[in-house]
Amino acid sequence: VSTLRIAVVGADAAGMSAAHTALRAARAAGRAVLVTAIEATEHTSYSACGIPYWIAGDVPGGDDLVARTAQEHRAAGIDLRLGTRAVGLDLARRVVTCVGEVPGEVEYDELVLATGAVAIVPDWARTPDGGLVAGVHPVKNLDDGAHWIELLAGAGERDGPARAVVVGGGYIGIEMAEALLRRGLSTTLVTRGRVMGSLDDDMGGRVGAAMVAAGVDVHTGTTVERLETDEGRVSGVVTAAGDRFPADVVVLAIGVEPATALGGDAGLPLGIADGYLPDAGGRIAPGVWAAGDCCEVEHRLTRTRTFLPLGTHANKLGRVVGDNLLGADRRFGGALGTAITRFVAGGVHAEISRTGLSSDEAGAAGHDVVALVTEGSTASGYMPEAAPIATKVIADRTTRALLGVQVVGGPGSAKRVDAAAAALWGAMSVDDLAGMDLSYAPPFATTWDALQISARRLAERI
Amino acid sequence: VSTLRIAVVGADAAGMSAAHTALRAARAAGRAVLVTAIEATEHTSYSACGIPYWIAGDVPGGDDLVARTAQEHRAAGIDLRLGTRAVGLDLARRVVTCVGEVPGEVEYDELVLATGAVAIVPDWARTPDGGLVAGVHPVKNLDDGAHWIELLAGAGERDGPARAVVVGGGYIGIEMAEALLRRGLSTTLVTRGRVMGSLDDDMGGRVGAAMVAAGVDVHTGTTVERLETDEGRVSGVVTAAGDRFPADVVVLAIGVEPATALGGDAGLPLGIADGYLPDAGGRIAPGVWAAGDCCEVEHRLTRTRTFLPLGTHANKLGRVVGDNLLGADRRFGGALGTAITRFVAGGVHAEISRTGLSSDEAGAAGHDVVALVTEGSTASGYMPEAAPIATKVIADRTTRALLGVQVVGGPGSAKRVDAAAAALWGAMSVDDLAGMDLSYAPPFATTWDALQISARRLAERI
Repeated sequence: VSTLRIAVVGADAAGMSAAHTALRAARAAGRAVLVTAIEATEHTSYSACGIPYWIAGDVPGGDDLVARTAQEHRAAGIDLRLGTRAVGLDLARRVVTCVGEVPGEVEYDELVLATGAVAIVPDWARTPDGGLVAGVHPVKNLDDGAHWIELLAGAGERDGPARAVVVGGGYIGIEMAEALLRRGLSTTLVTRGRVMGSLDDDMGGRVGAAMVAAGVDVHTGTTVERLETDEGRVSGVVTAAGDRFPADVVVLAIGVEPATALGGDAGLPLGIADGYLPDAGGRIAPGVWAAGDCCEVEHRLTRTRTFLPLGTHANKLGRVVGDNLLGADRRFGGALGTAITRFVAGGVHAEISRTGLSSDEAGAAGHDVVALVTEGSTASGYMPEAAPIATKVIADRTTRALLGVQVVGGPGSAKRVDAAAAALWGAMSVDDLAGMDLSYAPPFATTWDALQISARRLAERI
Repeated sequence: VSTLRIAVVGADAAGMSAAHTALRAARAAGRAVLVTAIEATEHTSYSACGIPYWIAGDVPGGDDLVARTAQEHRAAGIDLRLGTRAVGLDLARRVVTCVGEVPGEVEYDELVLATGAVAIVPDWARTPDGGLVAGVHPVKNLDDGAHWIELLAGAGERDGPARAVVVGGGYIGIEMAEALLRRGLSTTLVTRGRVMGSLDDDMGGRVGAAMVAAGVDVHTGTTVERLETDEGRVSGVVTAAGDRFPADVVVLAIGVEPATALGGDAGLPLGIADGYLPDAGGRIAPGVWAAGDCCEVEHRLTRTRTFLPLGTHANKLGRVVGDNLLGADRRFGGALGTAITRFVAGGVHAEISRTGLSSDEAGAAGHDVVALVTEGSTASGYMPEAAPIATKVIADRTTRALLGVQVVGGPGSAKRVDAAAAALWGAMSVDDLAGMDLSYAPPFATTWDALQISARRLAERI
């Protein structure tokens, strides 16, 4: 058997999970493989999710966010080509064309596209030459993080940046509002929709209220029309509603989009979000695989494609691909839309999580939706650990199937969503969630866990 | 239709859940009911689990542990008879005979036995007249809690109690060791087996080590032979190993046993732990139901009877009984053996949880057991929240079924067991646990949650 040549484009979570898994599988099978990883930046396998915490001051440096260094990848036998961008893909010849530090063609037998996603940059944030207005920046990769560390140098001091505007009310927007507030900046958040729009109104509103309580100036339902600048640097943000917010720095947290130009130009099919469409095994075409934020994955509940750019799916699908490159028949079980974050600043501690379908999503998917929000406590009411927790349980009236759960509450709230995620994974009913044997002791829960109180009350109403 | 006469013996979690649920069901059905609740003590519906935290100083008073007062039960329409002990049961005549504050006979159509459990008191703890040696006490009910508050008056002061011996290394033993250490007592723990014997050795040993690190003098594998006393008060504990530990106070935390004399004497069948044996609907004989700590419930995984005296089952089975008293056909889904506690004292924060079968239990149940302990982190390693977490995943080699999970770790560890409990509830596999979409963000988890790393590694080995 000849050497199997695997090319991986993108050396972050998905690509490197696939690469290392393939190496292990090859070793186990006694098969010779050559893995070439092509990475446009100088960084590998880092935690993008950690960048807001680096900016907040929790993490000493960008290096701390790197899970595996270039050296470690190379020591494992990967031919890692940093600073090298894949600019052409010939599916018929099975060749990737690269420019940069290691220019030229890479021939492959199997190709893994793991090119991730890129931050959306609106036109108003750009200079005439296509760059970013000084002081305005997204929060996507390690270079962005380093740029933010520079932008915020001197924050809290007399001449440092003092006023920030965060544009976007999703996960990154909320995490950056936390970071900026903790760094001492007066912070305004502007979002087109609501804060935390992936939750239903009755839950997302609690997040917005928590941010307001912490001192964030929150403006929902409005967009940015233009920036004001002073000698080329941003000095203010003007919204469609006519408000003007002074700003020394502006966070672009509007969202990301899959980086799929390479495959798209080569004729590979893309989904409605322009993402690759891997099957459950990770394959998108003969000899071509994809994983990570460049993909639209299958939602386990709706069986439709959904763009959920999260490290969890990148790692899981990456491993599936790695095994399947060597001939295994492993399958990615699908995504539930589980997500978690927090807003901890200004004396406020709000934890936020969700799994499954929101009421809106469930209705759109054709369910006869019943849902209930319940106010509970994270611990027995008499314990010092007790904090408020609101849980929303969403179910189908006809089948009684559990469809989704959302949580907003104090310390210890958010990770509770995992029990609901497990129940959704097993296609359980709202009665199962209400009846299952979850853990209880006074510092950790009420006798009926907050989740189960919601589920039980909802079950009683159906 | 005539009035349905329901007698409930025992006015704590199980009995009062049944009583209130029956009242609601009756109201919904337009049915007249008369609920008489017979309670030997002066207390109702209190959190026994909260007593160690009251003793530790977290909870101001015993009243704070009362979920529903006598007044509230009466306002809901329950004929509550405090200080009244049921001493006779005539199943044929459907009559309970009582002594105490409201002596006499109570006629019933349906009877609920919710008499709970009593602390085991070994012979060495007793005075010749059958009482307890002064300074030696269990931790079971509110009166015990009040007694402990008295015993520990002056703790930390010159003439207060300074040295404690806890006998028993289970949940109550560990929680009382925390309480005593936090109250400033020098604390010794003596246990016949290991610390936290409901975990496997390789996990329970971590709890013992945490206690030692906090300054508890832990002695496993030995029993108490006798007490030393000074003018009738305990002054020391002598073990079978020949050790003598000075003691101003001694905690009896050896375990509890079902209080089933009433039904046992009337000829109702009892299980191997002397508990009542309700069917899934809570019935033990025609017109007789049981719920709570006086029962052996069905284990959902082994389908065998098991004595798991926990408030969670008491509440759940109590509600099932309440509905079924009015003719519903509800079923208790079984117990998984989920449990959680912590040991937080002396600079140590250890959280402990388990669900399903231990390796030993799984082996005894006939499984071909595979298990793996993995060391992980509760949060991304670069976050200040990151704490060590050890997780053990237990599965069946042949079927790949998940059988159990155990967790010992720092802050944020223990509640993770709920995702595993949900997976067990749905009879999922170790592959399901490894692949499911659990929540990740840097302050809350690693990209693969600690539980999933264990499950994945175990799955790879099968």
